[in-house]
Amino acid sequence: MSGLADLILGRPLATEEEQGERVGPLRGVSILGLDALASAAYGPEALLTILVPLGAQALVHVTGVMLVIVGLLVVVYLSYRQTIDAYPGGGGSYTVAKENLGKWPSLVAAAALSVDYVLNVAVAVSAGVGALVSAIPGLLPYTLWLCLALLLLLVLVNLRGVRATGAAWMVPTYAFVATLSIVLVFGGVKALAAGGHPEPVVPPPALPPATEGLTLWLLVRAFANGCTAMTGVEAVSNGVPIFRKPPERGARRTLGAIIAILVALLVGISLVARAYHVGATPPAQAGYESVLSQLTGAVIGRGWFYGVTIASIVSVLALSANTSFADFPRLCRLLAQDRYLPEPFEHRGRRLVFTHGIVVLALLSGVLLVVFQGVTDALIPLFAFGAFLAFTMSQSGMVEHWRRRRGNRLKLAMNGLGAVGTGVTCLVIVASKFVEGAWISILLAGLAVAMYAGMRRHDDRLKRAIHAADEPLSVAGTREPLVVVPMRGWDRVSIEALRFAMHLADDVVVAQVLTGDREVDDLTGRWKRLVAAPVRHAKKEPPRLVVLRSEYRRLFAPLVEMVDKLIEENPDRQVVVVVPELVDRAWFSFLVHPHTAALLREAFLLEGRPHLVVVSVPYYVCAGRVCIGRASSK
Amino acid sequence: MSGLADLILGRPLATEEEQGERVGPLRGVSILGLDALASAAYGPEALLTILVPLGAQALVHVTGVMLVIVGLLVVVYLSYRQTIDAYPGGGGSYTVAKENLGKWPSLVAAAALSVDYVLNVAVAVSAGVGALVSAIPGLLPYTLWLCLALLLLLVLVNLRGVRATGAAWMVPTYAFVATLSIVLVFGGVKALAAGGHPEPVVPPPALPPATEGLTLWLLVRAFANGCTAMTGVEAVSNGVPIFRKPPERGARRTLGAIIAILVALLVGISLVARAYHVGATPPAQAGYESVLSQLTGAVIGRGWFYGVTIASIVSVLALSANTSFADFPRLCRLLAQDRYLPEPFEHRGRRLVFTHGIVVLALLSGVLLVVFQGVTDALIPLFAFGAFLAFTMSQSGMVEHWRRRRGNRLKLAMNGLGAVGTGVTCLVIVASKFVEGAWISILLAGLAVAMYAGMRRHDDRLKRAIHAADEPLSVAGTREPLVVVPMRGWDRVSIEALRFAMHLADDVVVAQVLTGDREVDDLTGRWKRLVAAPVRHAKKEPPRLVVLRSEYRRLFAPLVEMVDKLIEENPDRQVVVVVPELVDRAWFSFLVHPHTAALLREAFLLEGRPHLVVVSVPYYVCAGRVCIGRASSK
Repeated sequence: MSGLADLILGRPLATEEEQGERVGPLRGVSILGLDALASAAYGPEALLTILVPLGAQALVHVTGVMLVIVGLLVVVYLSYRQTIDAYPGGGGSYTVAKENLGKWPSLVAAAALSVDYVLNVAVAVSAGVGALVSAIPGLLPYTLWLCLALLLLLVLVNLRGVRATGAAWMVPTYAFVATLSIVLVFGGVKALAAGGHPEPVVPPPALPPATEGLTLWLLVRAFANGCTAMTGVEAVSNGVPIFRKPPERGARRTLGAIIAILVALLVGISLVARAYHVGATPPAQAGYESVLSQLTGAVIGRGWFYGVTIASIVSVLALSANTSFADFPRLCRLLAQDRYLPEPFEHRGRRLVFTHGIVVLALLSGVLLVVFQGVTDALIPLFAFGAFLAFTMSQSGMVEHWRRRRGNRLKLAMNGLGAVGTGVTCLVIVASKFVEGAWISILLAGLAVAMYAGMRRHDDRLKRAIHAADEPLSVAGTREPLVVVPMRGWDRVSIEALRFAMHLADDVVVAQVLTGDREVDDLTGRWKRLVAAPVRHAKKEPPRLVVLRSEYRRLFAPLVEMVDKLIEENPDRQVVVVVPELVDRAWFSFLVHPHTAALLREAFLLEGRPHLVVVSVPYYVCAGRVCIGRASSK
Repeated sequence: MSGLADLILGRPLATEEEQGERVGPLRGVSILGLDALASAAYGPEALLTILVPLGAQALVHVTGVMLVIVGLLVVVYLSYRQTIDAYPGGGGSYTVAKENLGKWPSLVAAAALSVDYVLNVAVAVSAGVGALVSAIPGLLPYTLWLCLALLLLLVLVNLRGVRATGAAWMVPTYAFVATLSIVLVFGGVKALAAGGHPEPVVPPPALPPATEGLTLWLLVRAFANGCTAMTGVEAVSNGVPIFRKPPERGARRTLGAIIAILVALLVGISLVARAYHVGATPPAQAGYESVLSQLTGAVIGRGWFYGVTIASIVSVLALSANTSFADFPRLCRLLAQDRYLPEPFEHRGRRLVFTHGIVVLALLSGVLLVVFQGVTDALIPLFAFGAFLAFTMSQSGMVEHWRRRRGNRLKLAMNGLGAVGTGVTCLVIVASKFVEGAWISILLAGLAVAMYAGMRRHDDRLKRAIHAADEPLSVAGTREPLVVVPMRGWDRVSIEALRFAMHLADDVVVAQVLTGDREVDDLTGRWKRLVAAPVRHAKKEPPRLVVLRSEYRRLFAPLVEMVDKLIEENPDRQVVVVVPELVDRAWFSFLVHPHTAALLREAFLLEGRPHLVVVSVPYYVCAGRVCIGRASSK
């Protein structure tokens, strides 16, 4: 087992090896930047899709809207740079909001991000598989299985640790940047050379005739849609601790690189698309072709380079899920440290990553994928909202941060601009997509806030209940416990339990239940010879035998009844039930054995009796040819 | 909970109430006879389907083949009458083979029946739902859910006990017999009045032209197919104990009634079908109409009576699964008594039926239904084989029974005739259906035999390992156990466990594991004041504190390692690990808690260490507003 785990996940890393797992900006981009970079593939397309009713007019306006988005992106970048410097220990929206705005805003930020991260995984995985399936239609029936396989791959790579993840995704990340840059530069040069009207190698589909006039609302909706190009930008500020020391420098450089590449791609795409008359084709209809595919075809043609470009775009789309895998477990860890989530989210697993968060993220997004059968288009409108709500909380927190410190007016202004910009965008997104699905995001985020707060409340209650302050152990003489041994018959398993029970106390009751269904010897006749006589001979008090007959053939009910009576009659004593347990290690034993011991333990514990302790005394028997335990020591 | 169970399943019955649960022949027919009677609905159809290639000639031969089948049926009836008399305690094939032929033949009989019973449930349920769905096509997408719902209904009714089951199915059973009898008598009278050529009310589809000539092989295959009409006949001999005293009389009358009705229906159907020129239509093709539907239409027309008749036929088809529910659990009980199956199959549940067998039968056939998506036509060829193999084993056993007793030559001859008849039929079925699927039945039956024998072998080994004969308890002075208490911090849960541990022995080691992931106080500094001083003051040996630091952030590994070392160093002492367990009864607690105590227990027990006992000491905290246990007693 351990050999197999080593093979798949790598050898366990000691806590001191943490420094060695840290990365620089080169890997940082592929770990934290995939979500942001992939935005270049769908942001311009989302924007153009809204403008389809304008026909060829769309291309006149796309650059303008795109410039507004890029402006906002730059503001967000500058604000997050400041956040990284101010919170070098990891300044995700949750931390910033918690430090500056208080509990509830921080939970809102955490909930918004959680929903965003889970949706991002489902949408990215299904987008990647969707592209693969439309390239190889024979795979269509296996869509869901492919999605789940990709999810499993993401889990396994991320469980191998931060460095391994960075290495794994480096090739697709930089292939994406390189191929797309070549297309855009080449297209730009050709367009300039042709005086703005280049001849396409493969002409894109003609733009449809205009069906609507230009309205402000249309431009606003195009902006809201295009803002999906900004999702994923917050990832770096949350993941600062993965960088080599000083981490804030690595994080700053990584964020700068991501934003620079993203801005270049977004501006490049909108300009080259305009030059080549490339618009969006209506999605989910015959003749659909993505904007980047049209663009590559028009600039370069349909040769091998086209294939490489499209393959790298599809890989990055699918792998943009990785940003969630890097950040969600960290967010959960912070929440668990503040006891808004259970403790296991805090533990670093074998490769120093937060295993529990990774697995929970995969399960939640896996459920979404299964429910939507691997086609999650319906989820896309849900999803920019969470990111922008988190932006807004983070930027507002930073404004408060500078306000408290006084004096740094420029920084305050920058974060204020960011807060206003992202806040307004968030409202625009809600207004323009409320019916389409933004309301579901709002509902889910609300539920997440309630869940986090509820867990903390419950944990506080538990903490109070078990708190022992600094009081020393009280050794005041409690009375010896009263011991009950349920026995089915006279065999080694029961004998072992009886001997253990007699260690515990002098006051032992043996209870035998006869149901009448299986023939079991009533022990009454043999008790004196088997037990009472030898024990008396050793000058001890012999255990009492009680035979219970179960009218309704229940094995447990008479026992539980008897124990309850004993508890009632002995309020000052602890009652210990010693259950004989046969441990059979054959692989099929779970099918064969009635699990009496385990069920009995549950029966006693679940009902919550005070002063009751249940002990199973195991007796091991041979499994296959290997004998372990007592049986072998005879 | 108990109120709900009472409502659904009825109040628990005491073991003495068993007599009141027994039934007479009237209910007996509906409990044990549905499988046999439903055969009238598909046996003639199965026979006619094989003869379709003969065209109108088919009707000339159907009566002949049917008479052979009825002859065999009468022989089987007479043989089983003798079996019932000879084994009034229940003489299923398994018992008869075991008593007379030995272990392996009896396991073959049991395996054949088990396979037959499971297949019967799946096929009957899907046949019933199939008929319903073809009447109301809107239900087609819910086929599987309807199948599972019907299965659940069968489980619930059977869990209510034998009497309740008999009462529930009485109406459909006798409606089936009554409506079909009316159709046949009416048809027969009209045919006689018309001199053998009655005018059909709704003419049946014309018989297709002959495409093949008559061959012996065709007749043999028709016979093999028609023999499905005999499945279910063995049920009564297996279910004798459900009848009122003297049970053999009730069983004999029930079997007689079932056979008489079945023979009348089979002969009637073949004669009236011939008179009205009703043949089989090719199944699973457009224009398919069942033989009984054609017959009812031809004799009575398509009015309300047609509806009632078809509805009763469909109900009986679906409910013929009930025979399996009556017999399979009894067979399992017999196997469990001989330790070929685990013990729980022996226990009678709240209503004195063998709950475990009922549930296992439902699960197995439920799996078949899910795998085949509720359409189990493919399973039909698998299924007469098991019944006839069981017949043969039972009849051969009876031959041996009489041979040993000597003298009763007539009875021996009768059972001998039965054995030869059913044995030859079994071979015919295998030969004619081997490729279609009989090989799967043979394989499954073989696996079942291997499983039964394997369970017995395993159980024998366990029995030997735990056998204690009559040796009295040895009270020789074993040394006091060594106790280990894993503690996370100083709280009430841990304190409770420590106090219990100090009861167990003077030699207590407290182990604290620090993983570095969650901040937990190292207890070293406070140990003297909190524990050592007060314990010394009470003139006892204070527990030792061991702090373990886990380099790989594992909570359990260092503990297990330490305990293993203790075991090795103290081969003559028992080591007891006392695990503090927080019992939180909030409904969501299973999501919130790390289950450390349970996992720790498993970690210790699964590895099978000798001389190790694991104890959890529970500490109860409030759930919602109700506080139970220690927390409330403060």
